[in-house]
Amino acid sequence: MKKNGSLEALSEALRRLPGVGPKSAQRMAYHLLQHDRAAASELGHALLNAVDRIQHCASCNTFTETEICETCLDPSRDASQLCVVETPTDQMMIEQTLMYKGLYFVLMGRLSPLDGIGPKDIYFDKLMHRAANGLVQEVVLATNFTNEGEATAHYISETLKARGVKVSRLARGVPVGGELEYVDPGTIARAMLDRRTT
Amino acid sequence: MKKNGSLEALSEALRRLPGVGPKSAQRMAYHLLQHDRAAASELGHALLNAVDRIQHCASCNTFTETEICETCLDPSRDASQLCVVETPTDQMMIEQTLMYKGLYFVLMGRLSPLDGIGPKDIYFDKLMHRAANGLVQEVVLATNFTNEGEATAHYISETLKARGVKVSRLARGVPVGGELEYVDPGTIARAMLDRRTT
Repeated sequence: MKKNGSLEALSEALRRLPGVGPKSAQRMAYHLLQHDRAAASELGHALLNAVDRIQHCASCNTFTETEICETCLDPSRDASQLCVVETPTDQMMIEQTLMYKGLYFVLMGRLSPLDGIGPKDIYFDKLMHRAANGLVQEVVLATNFTNEGEATAHYISETLKARGVKVSRLARGVPVGGELEYVDPGTIARAMLDRRTT
Repeated sequence: MKKNGSLEALSEALRRLPGVGPKSAQRMAYHLLQHDRAAASELGHALLNAVDRIQHCASCNTFTETEICETCLDPSRDASQLCVVETPTDQMMIEQTLMYKGLYFVLMGRLSPLDGIGPKDIYFDKLMHRAANGLVQEVVLATNFTNEGEATAHYISETLKARGVKVSRLARGVPVGGELEYVDPGTIARAMLDRRTT
């Protein structure tokens, strides 16, 4: 199959996408070449373009094509609040609530010692530097409520508190529309502990 | 998000891969940009390269970078036999058996009227032309034993027989290692009909 180097190379390269094994990679390669060469070209250009242009925002660390991203440049946002999220998708979810007008810091991951992901990989020093810019009054930790997200929040919280920064965490409790019968006991326990006077 | 055009474009382009929805496309885009930019570049170049170089073999219709593929050029192969398969993968499976020394024709699909896939899409005229080159003594139909594969085999078989070409089909029966208890009745019925004197 030496003569088909570029077909082999395409299958190999597709396998490096997350969640794509050898069989799907081959199916994708055949599909693109047989039925959608336009998509193949488009994807090829999009990949090279993105690698060339996308970088991390110097301020909030999210993906951007400019030095500083649009959100960070927006003068209407409250620079005294800094919300820490794991991914750009999480940031988008919080934006959709329309309940937060502060700025963000995107970790681009979470601490996971078992996978060899330490503080360096979540841009910990950049976050510390960002939180200490003199404007930030409160850091809102919005990492996921998974074991790793919780550990990440704890680690960041301890370090920031030691430096005198006010730190908060998204509330845990029964989801909106949740029926107690179908909510797990851990969530109900937490909702009980964090109950609010009305 | 206007400033992030190339990130959006990358997600959009990834969605055109078979089996990739909006969520996985975004996850792939983030993964590549965050953890594996080398893979992104490599895939980008591989795609453009493949689109540029890969074409159909003028003789057997498989993917190749040359006018005629290696298999068709191999003088040790028996030009009197022509095995018709749906995909290059199927051809590879037959090659692995080491039981066939003839040449191939790759349909690059199967007839599927419901999906609008007709004889043109499986290069029917090219196959007829190939089978009528004066050297082919027997056409072995090795399309899949699915409804569509069977219909494709039937269609090709009828046309070729009308032109006086000898046509055969892969045998159906109990798979090697198969226990009757776990084989479907249709397969056993066919194995009974096609039983061989030993």
